[in-house]
Amino acid sequence: MIQKLIENIKKTNAPIVAGLDPMLSYIPEQIKRTAFAEYGETLEGAAEAVWQFNKKIIDAIYDLIPAVKPQIAMYEQFGLPGLAVFKRTVDYCKEKELVVIGDVKRGDIGSTSAAYAAAHLGRVQVGEKLLTPFGEDFATVNPYFGIDGIKPFLDVCREEKKGIFILVKTSNPSSGEFQDRRIEELPISGQRRPADGKDRPLYEIVGEKVAEWAESCMGDTYSYVGAVVGATYPEMGKVLRRIMPNSYILVPGYGAQGGKAEDLVHYFNEDGLGAIVNSSRGIIAAYKQEKYASFGPDHFAEASRAAVMDMIEDIGQALSHR
Amino acid sequence: MIQKLIENIKKTNAPIVAGLDPMLSYIPEQIKRTAFAEYGETLEGAAEAVWQFNKKIIDAIYDLIPAVKPQIAMYEQFGLPGLAVFKRTVDYCKEKELVVIGDVKRGDIGSTSAAYAAAHLGRVQVGEKLLTPFGEDFATVNPYFGIDGIKPFLDVCREEKKGIFILVKTSNPSSGEFQDRRIEELPISGQRRPADGKDRPLYEIVGEKVAEWAESCMGDTYSYVGAVVGATYPEMGKVLRRIMPNSYILVPGYGAQGGKAEDLVHYFNEDGLGAIVNSSRGIIAAYKQEKYASFGPDHFAEASRAAVMDMIEDIGQALSHR
Repeated sequence: MIQKLIENIKKTNAPIVAGLDPMLSYIPEQIKRTAFAEYGETLEGAAEAVWQFNKKIIDAIYDLIPAVKPQIAMYEQFGLPGLAVFKRTVDYCKEKELVVIGDVKRGDIGSTSAAYAAAHLGRVQVGEKLLTPFGEDFATVNPYFGIDGIKPFLDVCREEKKGIFILVKTSNPSSGEFQDRRIEELPISGQRRPADGKDRPLYEIVGEKVAEWAESCMGDTYSYVGAVVGATYPEMGKVLRRIMPNSYILVPGYGAQGGKAEDLVHYFNEDGLGAIVNSSRGIIAAYKQEKYASFGPDHFAEASRAAVMDMIEDIGQALSHR
Repeated sequence: MIQKLIENIKKTNAPIVAGLDPMLSYIPEQIKRTAFAEYGETLEGAAEAVWQFNKKIIDAIYDLIPAVKPQIAMYEQFGLPGLAVFKRTVDYCKEKELVVIGDVKRGDIGSTSAAYAAAHLGRVQVGEKLLTPFGEDFATVNPYFGIDGIKPFLDVCREEKKGIFILVKTSNPSSGEFQDRRIEELPISGQRRPADGKDRPLYEIVGEKVAEWAESCMGDTYSYVGAVVGATYPEMGKVLRRIMPNSYILVPGYGAQGGKAEDLVHYFNEDGLGAIVNSSRGIIAAYKQEKYASFGPDHFAEASRAAVMDMIEDIGQALSHR
C-alpha cells in the first residue's frame, strides 16, 4: 500500500492528504436541515449530515489528491450511526482510488493490539470466513506500549501489504510534556549511554525505534512503517527525517494549527518523496475562511477544491525553492 | 461516578473488575453454532455469539462484582456489528448497576480528544438535543499527547461526573521500552533538575502529572482521575501509589499475565481502597482452565462465577495479611 501511496502522490504531484474530520459546526445549515428533517435530531441525523457533507467534498477533490485521512473520533462521537458513516466514507474513498489513512491512533498490548490491527487493516476469522471489518489502507498507532503494541500491526502490515504511521512528535502545544523529555540512559540493558553530553529527547528515541521497525517492513523504496511528526516543530522534523530515512512522514498541523509550507521542506527526502502533509479544517471548512467566503455555504465543496489547489501550489513552491 | 465505584466496591467487598474481552476462541462451540446458523459466518454472526457469551457471564457474576471493563478492541474487530454489541454490553451492565469502564485507550489532541470524550463519557449536541453515544462510566486514556489530550476528558469528567484511568505503567513485557526511560531534566522550562542523582523514569513523570490532574478533579475522597498500573511491576506500583495518593489505580495483569495477589497489596491505600484489580481471560474463559474444567463448556458461566469467587478470596486474603 505504501507503493500505491507513492504512485498516487507522483500521479497527482501532490504530497498532501485531506483530513476528513467533520464537525457539525463545519456543515452548512441546509445539509443539516435536510438530514434532521429525515432522521430527526438524532445520532442518525447527525451521521447522515456528515455523510452528505463528506460525499460532496470527496466528489469535488478526489482527482487532485492521493489520499484522505478520516479522523475516527469525529465519527465515534455520533455513536454507531457515526461509525457506520466512517465505514461508508472509507469504502467510498477506496472506490475513488484514494489511499485511506484511518486516523485511529489505536494502541494496546498483545492480542488487544492484534484485534485493533485486524479491525482497521486486516481481516478477522469468523468460522471458515476471513472478513474485513473496516478496511483502511493505513492506520495511525500510538507507541506508548513499546514493541508489544506495535508488533501485531507489523504482522498485519506484512500479511496484507498495509501500513502504519506511528506517533513520534505530535503537533499540539503540550506534545513536549512527555515527548520532549530528555532521556538519560538505556533502561533495559541497564547500561548507561556513553557520556557524550548528547542525551536525547523521547521523540528521538521513539524515532529510532520506528526506524528499526521500518527496516523490518520494507516496500520497494519506502517502508510500510511511517511516522507522525507535527508541522509545528520543523527543527525536530529535520532531525527525525534523518533518523527515519525509510519512513514516510505524515505531517499534521499545516495551516489552521500554524505550520507553514517553508517549514515542511525538511520533512521530505531529496527525492521529493517521504512526506505527506495533512490539512483538515483548512480544506473541508474552507468556505468558512475569509479567503474562500465568496463561495458561500451552497458551494462549500468548490471552496474545498480551491483550498486543495492552493495548498498543492503552496507546498510545491516551497519544495521547488529549497 | 468514582463515588459509585467505591460504593459498589464496599458493597461487594470485592476490589475487582471483570474484563469483558471476548475472543471467539473463548466462546463455546454451541453458542457459535447457534449464532452462525442464524446470521451465517459473518460479522453479525460473530457479534451475536459475543453477545450471548457476554450476557450469560454477566448474569452469572453481576451480583459479586462492582464493575466490568469491556475492551473495545475485541468488539471493534467485528466491525459495526461488533461495536453494536459493545454498546449493548455497556447498556446491559449499567442496567445491572455495574460500573462500566470502557477500556478504549483513546487519546488525541484538542477537539479530537473532546470528540472521544463525548463519544465514551459525555454527550454530543445534535441540533437542540444532547445525545449519549456510548455512555460508559469510565474510560482508559493514553497520555502521550500531554495535557492537550487529557484536558477535554477532564472537562467531560467534571461536567458528567464520569472518570478516566490514564495509562501510566502498562502490564506488558515491553512497557519499559519507553515508559521506563530515565528522564534527565525538565524540558519546558529548560531548567535542569537539581543534580540529586535521582533522575526518574518516564512513568513516574507521567504519574506526577496524573496526580496534578487528579487534584483538579476530586470526588469526596478519591479523584475522578485514576491511573493504569500493571500488576506485573509491583515495585513500580508501590512507588506510583505514593505519587498518586488521590487516584484509583486500575490494575491489569493479574492471573493470566502473571501478577499475584500478594504483589498487589501495595497498590491499595491504608483504607483498603484505592485499587481495582482486573481479570479478563481468568474469569471469562475460566472453563478452559484445568482448575475449572469440570464445569465443561455448557456451564462456562458457572465456571466464571467460581473464578470470580476465588479471585475475591485470593485478593481478600492477601489484603488481610499485609
